[in-house]
Amino acid sequence: MIPKSHPRYKSLLSRDKIVNAYKSGILADSGMIAHGRGEAFDYLIGEKTTETAEKAIEAAAAALILAKNPVISVNGNTTALVPEHVVKLAEVLGAKIEINLFYRTPKRVKTIWKFLKDQGAGEILGTEEEDFKHIEGLDSPRGSVSPEGMYKADVILVPLEDGDRTEVLVNEGKFVIAVDLNPLSRTAKTASLTIVDNITRAMPCLTRKVNKLKTKNPDELKKLMDNFNNINNLKESLKIMLNSINEFE
Amino acid sequence: MIPKSHPRYKSLLSRDKIVNAYKSGILADSGMIAHGRGEAFDYLIGEKTTETAEKAIEAAAAALILAKNPVISVNGNTTALVPEHVVKLAEVLGAKIEINLFYRTPKRVKTIWKFLKDQGAGEILGTEEEDFKHIEGLDSPRGSVSPEGMYKADVILVPLEDGDRTEVLVNEGKFVIAVDLNPLSRTAKTASLTIVDNITRAMPCLTRKVNKLKTKNPDELKKLMDNFNNINNLKESLKIMLNSINEFE
Repeated sequence: MIPKSHPRYKSLLSRDKIVNAYKSGILADSGMIAHGRGEAFDYLIGEKTTETAEKAIEAAAAALILAKNPVISVNGNTTALVPEHVVKLAEVLGAKIEINLFYRTPKRVKTIWKFLKDQGAGEILGTEEEDFKHIEGLDSPRGSVSPEGMYKADVILVPLEDGDRTEVLVNEGKFVIAVDLNPLSRTAKTASLTIVDNITRAMPCLTRKVNKLKTKNPDELKKLMDNFNNINNLKESLKIMLNSINEFE
Repeated sequence: MIPKSHPRYKSLLSRDKIVNAYKSGILADSGMIAHGRGEAFDYLIGEKTTETAEKAIEAAAAALILAKNPVISVNGNTTALVPEHVVKLAEVLGAKIEINLFYRTPKRVKTIWKFLKDQGAGEILGTEEEDFKHIEGLDSPRGSVSPEGMYKADVILVPLEDGDRTEVLVNEGKFVIAVDLNPLSRTAKTASLTIVDNITRAMPCLTRKVNKLKTKNPDELKKLMDNFNNINNLKESLKIMLNSINEFE
């Protein structure tokens, strides 16, 4: 047990979740290493949701509310860190949850499925029982998507995603929302909208914003989206990281 | 097998070594996550040994050659990534190798010991058979050191170390050489000399420098050390990272 008073409580708690998820088969080998990369960038951003990230989260909420077929794509790290928030956000939005894994095995899919179900998830797409559609430009199984899920989705939330898949989904005409702590990554640059924040802070914040904005009329929501510029927002996040490096003495 | 032509060959090879080391018990849980943090900073430094790092490596070589009792402290990550270079550097310097672990168990010590022996290591200190001395200011087992090794060492190479231990060793009057990709870390700031480089590049480079400098006279070596300023060198590494962030477009 990590004492709540520990100055790095939240970070150690996430680390614990990641290690347990690895041991229970939710995470692939690379998932634990990827978590470490995230930690480094989170450290540079100050381990808090910046105002810049909040702007991105607000625009993301607007896009998800306006969506006809919103889908939340989940992988091992997302399941490990924020399963309850995936379930909550899907509920609030009426969005679908779809499992999509880089290192896919039937066993991992089943383990993740069960983990999300235990958190109260409704229907979960992307399981082995489905007749997948294939998205061109990606090798199987990353390019295999559920016909009822990502295949016909207009807005997709892809937390902790890889650059290749983000690019292909954007080229398919989808509005892709990424959560990525590295503003220099290809995912961050190619997504329609990138939230530069730790997923453990971004997901509950996104759910709050959706709840707050869902009574607004579509024109207001559209305006929120139109006023958002992804590259400028990424540059603002980079500036914050630069400042934290410059504070060195 | 990762093909040598892969653009991320070296990074993937390291990742492979880390995963295998974790599975064989050389690495603690946190070791895999720590590797990911290193990857992020390596990315920012351009995944190469910078001229700045080379200056640090040169001064480190001088300090190690001048040392009366040089010791190389090894942990799980160092063993996983560069066991052969630890052995080679110890040989060239006539330095001692000492195992020191944050999460120490007799089994991990034994596994690391065997792994280094298989690479041709001579005597390895810090095993369970020894009557440890205790260094004040650190909890056991991190503060437990070999009486023939770190306890009487004047210069210690501590790759991939934690900040607490670095600080205490410096306070004990040791000249502590750290290898750390994060110039903002407490280890980097408190070490006597910090090499901001990936250990897989820094260790062979350090051995080359030692071979090149070992015929120099002590005055010349002393001068190399005196001309080196750790904080300025860290600032130069940070500047390189800042530039790589600024190149964003």
